[in-house]
Amino acid sequence: MKEGLAVVPVGFVRSAVKRVADAPRQGREAGTEAAIEVLPAYGEGLGGLAPGMRLLVVCWMHLASRDELLLRPRGDPDAPVAGVFATRSPNRPNPLAVYTVDLLAVEGLRLAVRGIDAVDGTPVLDLRPHRPRLDG
Amino acid sequence: MKEGLAVVPVGFVRSAVKRVADAPRQGREAGTEAAIEVLPAYGEGLGGLAPGMRLLVVCWMHLASRDELLLRPRGDPDAPVAGVFATRSPNRPNPLAVYTVDLLAVEGLRLAVRGIDAVDGTPVLDLRPHRPRLDG
Repeated sequence: MKEGLAVVPVGFVRSAVKRVADAPRQGREAGTEAAIEVLPAYGEGLGGLAPGMRLLVVCWMHLASRDELLLRPRGDPDAPVAGVFATRSPNRPNPLAVYTVDLLAVEGLRLAVRGIDAVDGTPVLDLRPHRPRLDG
Repeated sequence: MKEGLAVVPVGFVRSAVKRVADAPRQGREAGTEAAIEVLPAYGEGLGGLAPGMRLLVVCWMHLASRDELLLRPRGDPDAPVAGVFATRSPNRPNPLAVYTVDLLAVEGLRLAVRGIDAVDGTPVLDLRPHRPRLDG
């Protein structure tokens, strides 16, 4: 366990957002559209996904810092310092992001979605149906 | 990237549920209460968490199978086969679970929560505030 547990990308975000500085603060607030390109090895796992579904998408924020336990929410220098687990900063011990997105289209291995603010090339670890009763 | 990306446990689930066979189907539906014991190295990151908050908790389903891309939702032998990403099975390429839980109490490194059905000893990878506008 001390060596850590290994996750693998099942796909990657494709987005017009190329740099962190250009990313909107929260993809769903901004309604940012992006695509998820699923790797061929995982394509079979997409069966049953259809436009109109809402999904939880887990991404690996590969540009994040993993060393901060105390930070200022949203990088606001006037905000009080908070523990990282009381914030949604991408900078966290495990740099996971959880997005709730609307699935707009499915074209083979490419999913068009609304609500992801991650930069182009961000690894995607998981997709699953959002359930309002469980997740809302 | 092919070697995978390493995640580390920041804590562990402590639960009366000792075996997968005893777990309720969905912790939040069942209102299952459990605790999260955060490792001392990450304790500083809890600052700002308080009872009454709703949290997203990401767990590592260490007992899951990672090799299935097609499965029957909820293990129902009569259900049609679905792609793993169209289900919420714990058996998935990256065995991550995302729980929405109610934080009942904070006692040092121990968080009492309602809504986790993972078995005792399940690694916890992340905690963050749930935001209805983003996650609901």
